Amino acid sequence: MKTLNVSLGQRSYPLYIGAGLIGDTGLFDRHIHSTQVMLVSNETVAPLYLDRVLANLGGRQVATVILPDGESYKSMASAMQIFDALLSQKFSRNATLIALGGGVIGDLAGFAAACYQRGVPFMQIPTTLLAQVDSSVGGKTAVNHLLGKNMIGAFYQPQCVLADTSVLSTLPDRELSAGLAEVIKYGLIRDPDFFIWLEENIEALLRRDPETLTFAIERSCANKAEVVAADERETGERATLNLGHTFGHAIEAGLGYGAWLHGEAIAVGMCQAADLSRRLGWLNEADVSRIVSILQRSHLPVTPPAELNAGRFLELMAVDKKNVDGNLRLILLEGIGRATLPVSVDVGVLMATLEEYGRNC
Amino acid sequence: MKTLNVSLGQRSYPLYIGAGLIGDTGLFDRHIHSTQVMLVSNETVAPLYLDRVLANLGGRQVATVILPDGESYKSMASAMQIFDALLSQKFSRNATLIALGGGVIGDLAGFAAACYQRGVPFMQIPTTLLAQVDSSVGGKTAVNHLLGKNMIGAFYQPQCVLADTSVLSTLPDRELSAGLAEVIKYGLIRDPDFFIWLEENIEALLRRDPETLTFAIERSCANKAEVVAADERETGERATLNLGHTFGHAIEAGLGYGAWLHGEAIAVGMCQAADLSRRLGWLNEADVSRIVSILQRSHLPVTPPAELNAGRFLELMAVDKKNVDGNLRLILLEGIGRATLPVSVDVGVLMATLEEYGRNC
Repeated sequence: MKTLNVSLGQRSYPLYIGAGLIGDTGLFDRHIHSTQVMLVSNETVAPLYLDRVLANLGGRQVATVILPDGESYKSMASAMQIFDALLSQKFSRNATLIALGGGVIGDLAGFAAACYQRGVPFMQIPTTLLAQVDSSVGGKTAVNHLLGKNMIGAFYQPQCVLADTSVLSTLPDRELSAGLAEVIKYGLIRDPDFFIWLEENIEALLRRDPETLTFAIERSCANKAEVVAADERETGERATLNLGHTFGHAIEAGLGYGAWLHGEAIAVGMCQAADLSRRLGWLNEADVSRIVSILQRSHLPVTPPAELNAGRFLELMAVDKKNVDGNLRLILLEGIGRATLPVSVDVGVLMATLEEYGRNC
Repeated sequence: MKTLNVSLGQRSYPLYIGAGLIGDTGLFDRHIHSTQVMLVSNETVAPLYLDRVLANLGGRQVATVILPDGESYKSMASAMQIFDALLSQKFSRNATLIALGGGVIGDLAGFAAACYQRGVPFMQIPTTLLAQVDSSVGGKTAVNHLLGKNMIGAFYQPQCVLADTSVLSTLPDRELSAGLAEVIKYGLIRDPDFFIWLEENIEALLRRDPETLTFAIERSCANKAEVVAADERETGERATLNLGHTFGHAIEAGLGYGAWLHGEAIAVGMCQAADLSRRLGWLNEADVSRIVSILQRSHLPVTPPAELNAGRFLELMAVDKKNVDGNLRLILLEGIGRATLPVSVDVGVLMATLEEYGRNC
């Protein structure tokens, strides 16, 4: 088991990475200091892993909320369902919430924990590669709104995160690839050596070679932890973690949440960001090709869905948290391993990427 | 104009107290750094003061959400209405939210500001005495749930608070009295000299004598600011601000939010807390009488509504944020000006207060 400390002063917490952690009762006892525990999961994950987690919670008052699977359940309605369950069972503000699932469950349960009685302890057990390398570090919690993804949320840190690599054995291939999109992102924005390592090891990751996977998760989380420790509330460098996300969120919102996986949308978004960076003269053709190539080798899409034309894309991108006073701002690349802070982009150049992207990428 | 600094490190903010502040454009310019402003108010306050506030916001993109008046609108549905308005008008995370109204509007708009895009700047203009002396200091924001008051919320500090004493001229007598309940509370929990001053000046306050009112607001806010500065997230002394609130919340929930004003319910709750303290031998009969007397002189109720029997009261009190792992915990008095931290109370003694309260008080 590897332990990574996410350094956030009083809100610091450990991230444990390793095989079989969801059966390690000692970790649960160390981080749960209440007799009341609410476990939130979904109908895909619960049948596989719920019992193994519950086995660690003997002697406590345990309740569960099991939601249907899917991004469309990352909603205020689902959060209300959790509040209803907590209140009807008289859970106090010392109760611990556990999220067992992917990013949807983690973000949703984290938001519920942040708001219930103005904040209760929260433990995260991410069960997808994406959630292990992304939402497990940084304390961003949220639900979606019909008019935009993650528009209602809170910064809220967990007590600890258990990233159990053995649960990835049941992850569908498509979700594994989606997780790799975020792994590749860390290489792109700030870790060129990791990007090269990924170019050499992407097939081993797709084969789910345990050691290769463990290294990739650890390196990804270490990168994210460094960024978040330096900028918890996203006033600076943290925004670089959103490479490809403004484009990607537009795809997710435009198709309806859940049609594409988050990582798939972000893969295309990173291609679009790379293309735009090239148009601005910041990135050379060869690097754009390396980016597109590694994403393709990861079995990820690299062109946007045909049904979203450039005008609609632009409209959807206008509702993004990085925008300031109505100006569209994007994270771009100045090289592989070097992201920009949010920059205002000339709409003409952006439209060129949006319109011609299909044949340039 | 008096300025009180609420000291919370990076989250410190000024509280301005004085007549005519809602017409002071300089204060708005000093604290609003965005071109987008969303003003939240209600149908009672907006016709009286909205235009005077809007007159300070020239040149900005201004939107308003005007809700019906009343505690029942302090709901997640109202928060969603604010999110809908913000998103449909493409408000960015630099937008400023202004709350113009009483505690309901302040708590609701504050919660919306805390959650919108994980937090946007927020300015508070409390228009009731209760809101000026209570919710304007401390950053507690929340909405109610059918199963409990303030159960969904966040700790979130405003950029500044404008407590304009001149707007109190239009406040109904009943609401003025309700505000005095919280003013009296500060004397009871930590400021015995202020309690004596209140005993001498309560009639002047009811006459709305401007100088007397200004002093009472300032002294109340200074007391609250000291408590909050020492204990922002309510791990210690801050809980004493809840004197009478566990009882009071039970009344509000039991009758349906809005039937009684918050301050009215808290007035009864403080009588009940005083009675329980007396039964435990911590408070003498004479002090209980002084407490009941000043509340009566403030035209506040001092006995609970007949429709809530002791059993129902206890049930409603079981859902309280101060409870730990199912144990009921209350703030009590060890003297006038001396509150306890939350203490577990023997249910038998509590039932004695709940059952016999009517004839003892």
